Amino acid sequence: MITLIKNVLAVLRKDDRFSVEKCNIVIKDDLIDYIGDAPAYEKYDTVIDGKNRLAIPGLINAHTHSYMTLFRNSADDVPFNEWLFNRILPMEDKLIAGDSYWSTLLGICEMLRSGTTAFLDMYIFPYETARAVNDSGIRAVISRGLVGETADDEGGLRRIGEAKQDFINYKDCAEGRLTFRLAPHAPYTCSPAFLSTVIDTAREMGIGIHTHLSESISEVENIRNQYSMTPIALMEKTGLFTLPTAAAHCVHLDDEDFAILKENGVSVLTNPASNMKLGNGFAPVPRFLKEGINVALGTDSAASNNSLNLFREINNLSLIHKGANSDAVSVSASEAFYAATAGGAKALGINAGELSIGKKADIVLMDMMTPQLNPPTDIVSSLAYSANGSEVRTVIVNGKIVLDGGELKTIDEERIIFETNRIFDRINS
Amino acid sequence: MITLIKNVLAVLRKDDRFSVEKCNIVIKDDLIDYIGDAPAYEKYDTVIDGKNRLAIPGLINAHTHSYMTLFRNSADDVPFNEWLFNRILPMEDKLIAGDSYWSTLLGICEMLRSGTTAFLDMYIFPYETARAVNDSGIRAVISRGLVGETADDEGGLRRIGEAKQDFINYKDCAEGRLTFRLAPHAPYTCSPAFLSTVIDTAREMGIGIHTHLSESISEVENIRNQYSMTPIALMEKTGLFTLPTAAAHCVHLDDEDFAILKENGVSVLTNPASNMKLGNGFAPVPRFLKEGINVALGTDSAASNNSLNLFREINNLSLIHKGANSDAVSVSASEAFYAATAGGAKALGINAGELSIGKKADIVLMDMMTPQLNPPTDIVSSLAYSANGSEVRTVIVNGKIVLDGGELKTIDEERIIFETNRIFDRINS
Repeated sequence: MITLIKNVLAVLRKDDRFSVEKCNIVIKDDLIDYIGDAPAYEKYDTVIDGKNRLAIPGLINAHTHSYMTLFRNSADDVPFNEWLFNRILPMEDKLIAGDSYWSTLLGICEMLRSGTTAFLDMYIFPYETARAVNDSGIRAVISRGLVGETADDEGGLRRIGEAKQDFINYKDCAEGRLTFRLAPHAPYTCSPAFLSTVIDTAREMGIGIHTHLSESISEVENIRNQYSMTPIALMEKTGLFTLPTAAAHCVHLDDEDFAILKENGVSVLTNPASNMKLGNGFAPVPRFLKEGINVALGTDSAASNNSLNLFREINNLSLIHKGANSDAVSVSASEAFYAATAGGAKALGINAGELSIGKKADIVLMDMMTPQLNPPTDIVSSLAYSANGSEVRTVIVNGKIVLDGGELKTIDEERIIFETNRIFDRINS
Repeated sequence: MITLIKNVLAVLRKDDRFSVEKCNIVIKDDLIDYIGDAPAYEKYDTVIDGKNRLAIPGLINAHTHSYMTLFRNSADDVPFNEWLFNRILPMEDKLIAGDSYWSTLLGICEMLRSGTTAFLDMYIFPYETARAVNDSGIRAVISRGLVGETADDEGGLRRIGEAKQDFINYKDCAEGRLTFRLAPHAPYTCSPAFLSTVIDTAREMGIGIHTHLSESISEVENIRNQYSMTPIALMEKTGLFTLPTAAAHCVHLDDEDFAILKENGVSVLTNPASNMKLGNGFAPVPRFLKEGINVALGTDSAASNNSLNLFREINNLSLIHKGANSDAVSVSASEAFYAATAGGAKALGINAGELSIGKKADIVLMDMMTPQLNPPTDIVSSLAYSANGSEVRTVIVNGKIVLDGGELKTIDEERIIFETNRIFDRINS
């Protein structure tokens, strides 16, 4: 299967910089096979006219809980404890088999429509997420949420056992669009002893880690009181960072924490909207960038954002640190767009996130005939400061068109909205 | 001309709160004539099916410079002085007659598409803005930018004379969609003596004021050094606030400044993205709200945002103060949506900004069958946290449909993009 995107303006990555060029892009099966100005083949199965289109690498949502899309706008403008204990958990408690499949699909609709082609997910029913990923055609790294108090915590071991089975069941499905991680939830829900078990299991399975770290001041204070060290120092001590680790949030850090993240090659998954919405502040992204720590960008869940539109998040990332640091030069458009693409791919360990030969063909075509993208003065700036996701016209994942002309090709959006609303009504009746 | 929007979910304003109800909305000529569950007339000229639609009051962009849409993404990630003196002013210097008409229309395309039905504009060629407003069908308050060093400043007096003539020329055009203000630019570009002349003129013309105040720390320091008082105290002393005043920014204030704004009924026009992007910080919006000072919401220009999409700004307004104050309860969704609608109408002095009988029929219909608006748990929350403007399907201004089914009905968007890009190329050649 060979596809040509003909004569398209494209955001390429060359010599560690973004470069915007007119070119032909050839896709062979699931990979980008050619980028240049000459034709690569004599015949193509599909030709897409690149006129008035901008090709960008599909965005990568590096931290979300897609099953929570169902809880969108259920708990806003309230403190964190009210949010979690009185609003979210009582609803979560009423979920039954199948519910999170539909809720995840609703999130996938929103992500594909706004140009996201891959996401890193954390939840406790990976098989439902895997089914939604398989059916929709999107790419995902699914991580199994784990909590445990001791090394032989009964619930914890059961969950680890299930995760191992899920990994076996799903690793060959979805044409290679699915990979797995283990997700010890956070330092305050996983003891160091239990983490040792998780680390051994992940090493045995040959997979990486997805976790939450140093999200709130109270988390850091509590861990300091209990262990006399920061959450990040504690995690290093357990050996967690000897595995490829993607750590969400990392908002409240001391100097040593930065050194630990850097030394261990931990990727930080920053979630600007969620950190603001729950009153946790602004992560020290300018310093991560300065220190050379890899930064990826996430939306967190629709219950704490309440949108899975990564264009909005790129805009947040490029603006809030300028405001918080009174520095108009802090976090450039390029740095924000990088975090949403190549930085995300690095954090997720997937061969995507840029338009280069040999990368997975995860490509988004945007409409340049929209007022917000004109004049087309500085394309990368416009992706950070002007685009809102509504410019997305065609989405290709793994070489296959999953959205075209404003329509999702693989899934029935109307039914997904219907089913999700029905579930919402049931759990709130 | 009588139009019925039939059986539509609508965001109404009742007893100082938002209320979401299914209803029929009847428009007679330019006004909302009826809202309720019974039919109001036997026959309608137009019937719009409200199925799967959400009716909201058209958004009001309370501070922009629409002619600058042309300069979008021309000067990003640079300090303010570089932005203004080395990037924006050299381009501005090359503008010729007609240029700002097209640039303003480009901004209007973006505003209408994202649900904005009125804006408060500041610039030096009001006749070009007026022409764009007239042709597009949008509503606007056009304010003539003024600078002057003395009471009889030659350039200043010429500009005031032109403004008086523009006011006479344009006050009866655009079916009542146009009103005027005078816009003394800022305390650092208008001396108190010149301001006296501006105040006398505005009083004589019976119109209000639009200005910039206390945007940056350096502005406040410079005015303090020169006059031994804050910019806001200085403006009060000149008598400016005896006229209806809408003051953009108000980021850096002392306690007395809040008291002055409140006592004089000054409306604050807050511009979250612009304040962040230029490194000016976060305006003290939570305190404005607490003190009962009217807050309206603006995008500022596309050169310092770089988007005129007010949904993005509502999202900024509802998130950034939670982050900056570590307070998940700071600036609610309702408060942010109010600032973008009724708060804006109050600041602009226009009879719009809410769906109520007797108000101007400025109405936006959004598509509820979009993933980001589902589940439809809390509609006002979803407008602040989940919508991005792409849900807009129909826009009615002054009782007339100006956008429907994704198409602008009054202006030729493709030509507007073409002309604006041609101007951009010329001034940069």
